Amino acid sequence: MSAAFCFRTGVAALLVSGLVAGSAADQDAGSLLEEQILELRQSGLESRRSFALLKSLTTEVGPRFAGTPGDRAAVEWTVRTMKEIGLHNVRTEPVEVPRWVRGDESGEIVAPYPQPMHLIALGGSVGTPERGLEAEVVGVSSLEDLAARSSTEITGKIVFINQRLVRTQDGSSYGQTGSVRRSGPARAAEMGAVGVLIRSLGTGTHRFPHTGATRYEEGIEKIPAAALAIPDADILETQLASGQPVRFRFALGAHRLENVMSANVIGEIPGRKKPEEIVLLGAHLDSWDVGTGAIDDGAGCAIVLETARLLLELPAAPRRTVRVVLFANEEFGLSGARAYAKDHAQELDNHVLALEADLGPGAVWRYRVKTDTDSVEAAKKVMQWLQPLGVSWHDDTAGGGPDLIPLRAAQVPMIDLSPDATYYFDYHHTDDDTLDKVDPADLAQNVAAYSVVTYWAAERQGRLGRPPADEPLNW
Amino acid sequence: MSAAFCFRTGVAALLVSGLVAGSAADQDAGSLLEEQILELRQSGLESRRSFALLKSLTTEVGPRFAGTPGDRAAVEWTVRTMKEIGLHNVRTEPVEVPRWVRGDESGEIVAPYPQPMHLIALGGSVGTPERGLEAEVVGVSSLEDLAARSSTEITGKIVFINQRLVRTQDGSSYGQTGSVRRSGPARAAEMGAVGVLIRSLGTGTHRFPHTGATRYEEGIEKIPAAALAIPDADILETQLASGQPVRFRFALGAHRLENVMSANVIGEIPGRKKPEEIVLLGAHLDSWDVGTGAIDDGAGCAIVLETARLLLELPAAPRRTVRVVLFANEEFGLSGARAYAKDHAQELDNHVLALEADLGPGAVWRYRVKTDTDSVEAAKKVMQWLQPLGVSWHDDTAGGGPDLIPLRAAQVPMIDLSPDATYYFDYHHTDDDTLDKVDPADLAQNVAAYSVVTYWAAERQGRLGRPPADEPLNW
Repeated sequence: MSAAFCFRTGVAALLVSGLVAGSAADQDAGSLLEEQILELRQSGLESRRSFALLKSLTTEVGPRFAGTPGDRAAVEWTVRTMKEIGLHNVRTEPVEVPRWVRGDESGEIVAPYPQPMHLIALGGSVGTPERGLEAEVVGVSSLEDLAARSSTEITGKIVFINQRLVRTQDGSSYGQTGSVRRSGPARAAEMGAVGVLIRSLGTGTHRFPHTGATRYEEGIEKIPAAALAIPDADILETQLASGQPVRFRFALGAHRLENVMSANVIGEIPGRKKPEEIVLLGAHLDSWDVGTGAIDDGAGCAIVLETARLLLELPAAPRRTVRVVLFANEEFGLSGARAYAKDHAQELDNHVLALEADLGPGAVWRYRVKTDTDSVEAAKKVMQWLQPLGVSWHDDTAGGGPDLIPLRAAQVPMIDLSPDATYYFDYHHTDDDTLDKVDPADLAQNVAAYSVVTYWAAERQGRLGRPPADEPLNW
Repeated sequence: MSAAFCFRTGVAALLVSGLVAGSAADQDAGSLLEEQILELRQSGLESRRSFALLKSLTTEVGPRFAGTPGDRAAVEWTVRTMKEIGLHNVRTEPVEVPRWVRGDESGEIVAPYPQPMHLIALGGSVGTPERGLEAEVVGVSSLEDLAARSSTEITGKIVFINQRLVRTQDGSSYGQTGSVRRSGPARAAEMGAVGVLIRSLGTGTHRFPHTGATRYEEGIEKIPAAALAIPDADILETQLASGQPVRFRFALGAHRLENVMSANVIGEIPGRKKPEEIVLLGAHLDSWDVGTGAIDDGAGCAIVLETARLLLELPAAPRRTVRVVLFANEEFGLSGARAYAKDHAQELDNHVLALEADLGPGAVWRYRVKTDTDSVEAAKKVMQWLQPLGVSWHDDTAGGGPDLIPLRAAQVPMIDLSPDATYYFDYHHTDDDTLDKVDPADLAQNVAAYSVVTYWAAERQGRLGRPPADEPLNW
């Protein structure tokens, strides 16, 4: 086999040639554990069942925003699917969720050059008066720019925050600009604004605006807030640049209803030796009301379900319990994550590792851990099985995914298998989050990586040391 | 300058090195004509004014569907712009246009797996009852497949025509599948269907459905017709494949109003020797009601306007008149094209050439002509100046663009400068037809190619021989 051929066939060639097997002589390798890991990795790469699961979820359920009929259908779908896969102790755990309804939405530039605009209310926004809200627009480039303006300039106006999300492989720009969406409406209201428009927190240029939750603050007026599609933000920017006063009108039918009940859905592979010790595999079952939630977070659900199914095919269960948790209502307040941490407070000490898949269906490219300092080297040894999948060691600053935030306070060790998020924010939180955006082979590569890490953590002798505690979640 | 450098810098290097100039020794070359052509080509490649014009049109006017306020604003924009450019005889010529209003639209799969669907009424569709139209769906793969079904199977059903548009450089798949949209509703109604859904005639997978005109036929019931976005067509296809009966509900608020007046907008560079002989540069000013009409056909408008502006910068006008015509209402019945052919019937014999830019903003890659047989070789000689732009000779079957169809019966010679349409049908007739889809350099390459051909045809000694007459337009 020539080097060129090796290079072209990549992962498959490495697996066939056995270059990887038996290369490490530590406590984790050279054993049944390693043999199983290599088999799981190969099965993961070859399987297309994760894509089939995702196709089923997006076709038979579709949108599943917290508290909607779609949310209930998704819970039923998951219970049924977990049982079909053969998971044990399949159950729902009740979670109270807020109920926010989008209603009808419209917007337009009224002057100087009238034109309809594509916009979407931010999650949780209050509505406008029925005939809409019209005012002059003040454009700012960031929250810092807003803070530098005078209240006189802002009072009575619609503030347009025109900050750009940058395309990055790790999606870090979303973390940096997310405060525009979460806090922009509160900051603008504080200065007297009557409404807020933001440039969608998205990459690419397609014309679907990106929704996502905003947070009002105690004692500050709640003003209507929406995101403009990127081409529409461009048009508004150009009209503002003309120097003429720009007037905007928008109408949002958004409103809150009473809280309703949803559920976390849980299934397990009970450990054969230490069933009380838990490796948690998480994803969130809810999606925004637009889109079919294929990438956010149907992909994550499919990855962890198929990972569990592969583990169930092994001749024997791993030593520890593998628990799959599909969380309720991540998008609009982490309700499922909070409920899980509260309901399982007594056993969090026995959560030996937690992973969440919630950054889309791209191929995993990066491995990060969060343990005590002594365990970093042990966790690093997993790289011998991940590297042939194209995964690189990064550092010990794993974040764990949004639904794991409450577990950080309980010092649960975490691992991030970071998917390539280069194109994730083209579709994230839009109508265009649909199945066709998912590459079945990339999804399978995720399953291979999750299988390796999950089996290793559930089967190995020792436990990883626990990291320092994060601050408890306070919002 | 190394070969590698030459290759990388492409067109610019060819122009700088003068490899092309003076290479042909025929009647058209080696003269002032060739010198002017090379200058125009260079100016065209360097100019970014076509993009600036397009930005102005899409920002200050935006959607401009026939008979709407946007249509009127577009006519005013064009008159103003033509005068600013310095065109002569700038005028509007009245055109009566139909007035169709889209209204509100919604759709959903009702069973077996309820899910909201993204759809858009086909242009001209009748509306549904206010509370919508609900029926079982019969899926067919093509009009031929529909024709092969029995009326019993179709009667009372919604027919879903699931034919795929194929991505091609020349856009030919649109020509082949266009009958699904134009005639599908009439064919299905004839067999007893109560409604029609088609898979959008689009490439790519984004979730905007593609509109476009449909044609009802005398004596056949008019049934509501809409296009599903491609991801939604996929979901409906998958639900149908489950073998369970699929029920669909949709509501269209579409309706017709009285005809109103619009206008063709015309400006000229009067010929210095033969002002009565005309080279026509066409594009259409109207767009669909969704999108800002950047690629369809703002790009064409910008190309022909900037081509005319470059010709006006020459020390002397060409021998013949160059007439820029921005046609009214191409999209919903070719009203402007018909009116032009009728109003200018007496001078069509003096139309020595016509070109229309209406296949998007991609770089020109192909040159086709339509003349008498004897003139094909003469027309081919333009290739000496087009080839360095990356344009290839194709054949003598030029089509001329939709607004030129009525001129075919008058034997007007035509030239097609075919733009690369590989990605055109990703955005065509959708909300996502916006400025960000246009590459300024590609637009400039179009201007360079149009400048070459227009000046050559308006300045050269002889006229091209006239092709055989097409059948007159009968719809």
